[in-house]
Amino acid sequence: MKFFKVKTVSETLSIIAEQFHPFRPPIKLPITEACGMVLAEDVISGEQVPHFARSTVDGFAVRAQDTYGASDSLPAFLDITSRIEMGRAAQVLLKEGQAQAIPTGGMLPAGADSVVMIEHVEEIGELLNVYRQVAPGENVIRAGDDVERGELVMSAGHRLRPQDLGVLSAIGRTEVQVFPRPTIGILSTGDEVVPTEKKELAPGEVRDINSVTVGAIAQQHGAIVIQGGIVRDDYELFAARARELFAQVDVLILSGGSSVGTRDFTVQVMQSLGEPGVLVHGVATKPGKPTILAKAGDKPVMGLPGHPVSAQIMFQLLAVPLLERLQGVRARQTDVRLSAKLSRNVASAVGRTDYIRVKLEERADGLWAIPVFGKSGLISTLVESEGIAEIPENKEGVLEGETVKVYLIQ
Amino acid sequence: MKFFKVKTVSETLSIIAEQFHPFRPPIKLPITEACGMVLAEDVISGEQVPHFARSTVDGFAVRAQDTYGASDSLPAFLDITSRIEMGRAAQVLLKEGQAQAIPTGGMLPAGADSVVMIEHVEEIGELLNVYRQVAPGENVIRAGDDVERGELVMSAGHRLRPQDLGVLSAIGRTEVQVFPRPTIGILSTGDEVVPTEKKELAPGEVRDINSVTVGAIAQQHGAIVIQGGIVRDDYELFAARARELFAQVDVLILSGGSSVGTRDFTVQVMQSLGEPGVLVHGVATKPGKPTILAKAGDKPVMGLPGHPVSAQIMFQLLAVPLLERLQGVRARQTDVRLSAKLSRNVASAVGRTDYIRVKLEERADGLWAIPVFGKSGLISTLVESEGIAEIPENKEGVLEGETVKVYLIQ
Repeated sequence: MKFFKVKTVSETLSIIAEQFHPFRPPIKLPITEACGMVLAEDVISGEQVPHFARSTVDGFAVRAQDTYGASDSLPAFLDITSRIEMGRAAQVLLKEGQAQAIPTGGMLPAGADSVVMIEHVEEIGELLNVYRQVAPGENVIRAGDDVERGELVMSAGHRLRPQDLGVLSAIGRTEVQVFPRPTIGILSTGDEVVPTEKKELAPGEVRDINSVTVGAIAQQHGAIVIQGGIVRDDYELFAARARELFAQVDVLILSGGSSVGTRDFTVQVMQSLGEPGVLVHGVATKPGKPTILAKAGDKPVMGLPGHPVSAQIMFQLLAVPLLERLQGVRARQTDVRLSAKLSRNVASAVGRTDYIRVKLEERADGLWAIPVFGKSGLISTLVESEGIAEIPENKEGVLEGETVKVYLIQ
Repeated sequence: MKFFKVKTVSETLSIIAEQFHPFRPPIKLPITEACGMVLAEDVISGEQVPHFARSTVDGFAVRAQDTYGASDSLPAFLDITSRIEMGRAAQVLLKEGQAQAIPTGGMLPAGADSVVMIEHVEEIGELLNVYRQVAPGENVIRAGDDVERGELVMSAGHRLRPQDLGVLSAIGRTEVQVFPRPTIGILSTGDEVVPTEKKELAPGEVRDINSVTVGAIAQQHGAIVIQGGIVRDDYELFAARARELFAQVDVLILSGGSSVGTRDFTVQVMQSLGEPGVLVHGVATKPGKPTILAKAGDKPVMGLPGHPVSAQIMFQLLAVPLLERLQGVRARQTDVRLSAKLSRNVASAVGRTDYIRVKLEERADGLWAIPVFGKSGLISTLVESEGIAEIPENKEGVLEGETVKVYLIQ
C-alpha cells in the first residue's frame, strides 16, 4: 500500500474542488420543484421586464415638457382625458396639454414620458393643476429597464433560492435545467453495530446512529440517500457490498471502521473500487483525523470515522462541499460562519484544525461560544451543541474571550 | 374601522410570540421522516447508554489495583486469559492478576474496572508487561454514563436536527411525537396580476411572482403550501375566496394589494374572517410598512405588500417566526445574523427599521456588506443579494465601515 501524507482541511477542500464535478446530465424541472437545486444553464431572458412602461407612483401621466416651469404659485394647466386601469392596456394616445390618471404599476400611455405624483396636483373636474415640474422618465420604469430581452439573468452554478424562482417567474420561465440531486450510499461497518430498529441490544452491541445522522445531513444538502445497511468486519463481504452499493450511487460513504482491522479494510475496499483511488488518507483535524477520501472514476468515496461526533463534523466539513461540487455549485466566496467569543481557554496544536462543539449565548457584549463537554458526554454534547467552533491550524489554542468562527448546526 | 398604531418589528414579534401557538394535535412520525420537525413530547430514555461498560481505547482490561506502582523500570506482570471481540459479550470473568485484550468500544469483562492502553504494555506470549498504572474507571465508559434510564434527553419544542435523530436512535427510539407541518394558503390580489404560467402577457399585466417566492420560503420552513391563485380587486369575490381558503389552512397569506382600494379590501377581508381580527396594521420598517397581521380564532392571517422585495423581507422577518410558533419551536436565544461592515453610508430614520439587500464580500479586514442597487433594479437586486442588512430602529443611519447585522438569504 502507498503511504499518504495527512492533509490539512484547506488542502482537502482544494482537492475536492479540483477533483469533483457534476457527471450526470442536467434535468429539466418545473421551477416550483427547483428550490435548492443548482442551475445547469445560463438563463437568458426572452422578454423585457417590465414589458411595458409603468408608473412607479399614483398620479398623472404627462409629457414632461408640458410641466416645465410649473410651481405652487404658477401651476401648469392640463386636460384629464382618460383614467388608466390596473392590468389594462393604456389605449388613449396622450397629446400635448393632456394628462391621464394612472395608478402605481399602471401602464404609461403612448405620448406620455413621465408621471406627476398625486401629491403635486389638484383635480378640478376634468382640469388638472400641476404644481411641480417633472423630467422626462420621472416616476416611470421603461419597458426593459429591469431586464432586456437577451440579457443574462442568472448563470449556471447558481443555487436557486426562493427569490430566484420569483425572478424566473417574472421572465416567464416555468422550467429550468438543473443538475440532478446526487444519490449517496451509506454503508456502516463494525461487528458491534446493529440496526437502529433493534429493540433489545445484546451485551457488546450498539445501534448504527451514524447512518441516521449522516443521511439526514446529506438530505438537507440535496442528496438522495440510499442506506446500505451494516456489514461485518470481513473483507470479502465488505468489498462485495461496497461494490454493489457503489454501482448504484454517485457518492459512497463508508461509515465506522474504528477498529484497526476495519480501517485497513476500508482503505483496501476504497482502492479496489477504481482509479485514481485514495486522494487523502487522514485529515489534520481533531476530531476526525482517520477520514479518508478517494475517487473511483468520477465518483467520490469517503471513509468516515466511527465516533458519532467525528463522523458528523467531518461529513459537514468535507462531504457537504463534495455534494455541492457534484451539484455544480459555484464556490462560495463568503464566510458564512458566525463570530463568537470563546468562553474558556482551549488548547490546540499548530498544524491541526480543532473543532469544538459549542452552545451559543447572546450576552450584552455580543455572542459567546460555550464549549459543550458532557460527563462522558456523547449524547448530551450532541443535543446541546448549536454550533462547531474552529481553532485554526496556525494556532496553539484560543484564550478565553478570543473570537472564534462558529459553523451553525441547523 | 378601528385605527391601529403602526408597530415596530420587535413589538410585532412579541405579539406573534404571545398570540400564536400550535393548535393541531401532535402526530407520531418515524425518526427518518422527522428531520426539521419540532418535538411535541419530552423524550425520556428507556435505556442506559451505553448499556454496557465499554473501553474507550485499544488495550487490555485489568483490575486497576493490579497495576499500582507499575512503571517503565518496574512493570506489572499479568496473565492474558481472553480476547474480547467487538459486538460480543465479554463472557470470561477477570480475576486478580489477569488481563483481557479489548478493542475500542469493546465490552469490559466482569471483574475488570479499567483499561491499560496498548501503547503502555508489551505482550510476550500469554504474558503482559504493564508499564503504567491506571486508576479505577480509567479509559472506560460505564453503563449509563452517557444517559441513565429515565433521563430527559430532549424537551418538547426542540427542532430535530440530524444529530438529534442520531441521539434518538441511540436510545432506541424509532418514532417520535412532533407537531404537524402547518398548511399555509397564499392568495394573490390585483387586477394586473396574472398566473406565472401565462406565456404572452397583454399590456398592463405582470406575473404573480410573490406567491412563488413566498411559497418557497414557507416550504423551507416546514410549511405545506396551498396556492389559492389570484383574485381581482372585487370585495365580494376576494372575501369569498379568502374565506374558502382560510377554512382549508392553518395560516392565510394575502399577497399584493398595492393599490389603495385593494389595501382597504385586505383589512376588511381580514376583519371578516373572525375575532380578534387585526392585531398589527402597519409595521415601522422600510420597505414593508403596509404589512398587516390579524388573528381569526387560532389562525394567523397576514397581508403582505405587493412589491416583491417588500413581500419577501416581511415574510422572512414575520411569517417565518409565525410558522415556527405554530410548530411549537421554543424561542431562539441566539442571534444568528452575521456581522459585516457596511460599504457605504445609508440614511435611515429613528423609530423605523430599515432593511437593505446586500452582497457579501470577504476582505482582508473581515466581512463587508455591499448594498445592491440596480438600475430600476428589481430583478438584479433579487438575484445578486445574499443577505438583508438591518439598520436598527434607534439609528438615523449607518456610516461606511460601521458594523451591521445581516440575515443570510438561503
